[in-house]
Amino acid sequence: MMHRGRKGTDSERELVNMLWRAGFAAIRSPASGAATKNPLPDIIAGNGKRYLSIEVKSSSKDRFYIKKDDIKDLVTFSKRFGAEPYLGVKFNGEKWVFAPVDPLDGITQILSVTKDGNVRIDIQEVRQRWMDFDELIGISRQTRL
Amino acid sequence: MMHRGRKGTDSERELVNMLWRAGFAAIRSPASGAATKNPLPDIIAGNGKRYLSIEVKSSSKDRFYIKKDDIKDLVTFSKRFGAEPYLGVKFNGEKWVFAPVDPLDGITQILSVTKDGNVRIDIQEVRQRWMDFDELIGISRQTRL
Repeated sequence: MMHRGRKGTDSERELVNMLWRAGFAAIRSPASGAATKNPLPDIIAGNGKRYLSIEVKSSSKDRFYIKKDDIKDLVTFSKRFGAEPYLGVKFNGEKWVFAPVDPLDGITQILSVTKDGNVRIDIQEVRQRWMDFDELIGISRQTRL
Repeated sequence: MMHRGRKGTDSERELVNMLWRAGFAAIRSPASGAATKNPLPDIIAGNGKRYLSIEVKSSSKDRFYIKKDDIKDLVTFSKRFGAEPYLGVKFNGEKWVFAPVDPLDGITQILSVTKDGNVRIDIQEVRQRWMDFDELIGISRQTRL
């Protein structure tokens, strides 16, 4: 978990509230998580059937990168806790999008990986490939070509 | 979740670390939880098999009370999330003790309830009746008369 600015915190709160409205109980990890060395995702949610751990990023740019170590921490926590690891991304003016992360190596087909092992988050790619919120929580599942 | 002083936060961190060492992934709820109206326990933990939600209290007195609304919030969160609700108590100089909370009405045989519906936490009672940490995480189970 990286240091979070107010904007990041606002995004996390928004997503937490969406999850509550969708029937999940959700919790943000403490902002003072730096005090611990434990790998913590930004949000944990459960609805009695599914448990989600979500690494959240918001951006005003059209492209950014998530470090492979952040992905690794998300996977480590999720395996231990018993949760499905996801990335949740909010570009300015866009709707939330989500990508599952592979519980083994952190990389799924949906993700674009640089040669250094970091994950590239590109606004065009996520529009085409990533899930929206309803798909994340299992309400709908779009057919993709 | 009530306002937490530094001492309360230290207790929570201690318990979180004990849970990590015991094979769980554990997370404290954010200190700024007052910003949300959602009922949050102090700690959530999971190990892929069990999910625990724990309301944590530490005290320098030999007796104190937990408000019935705090118990109700713990139960509400736990049912929704899919976790076993527990109270975790640390009296000064004593080891941690735990009591399961009934997922329906919040009251179990182990708990002493006042006529107002609040829960009385008494150092003598918890020494006799409550679980220790190993019992909480299922390592051992003491026989009690």
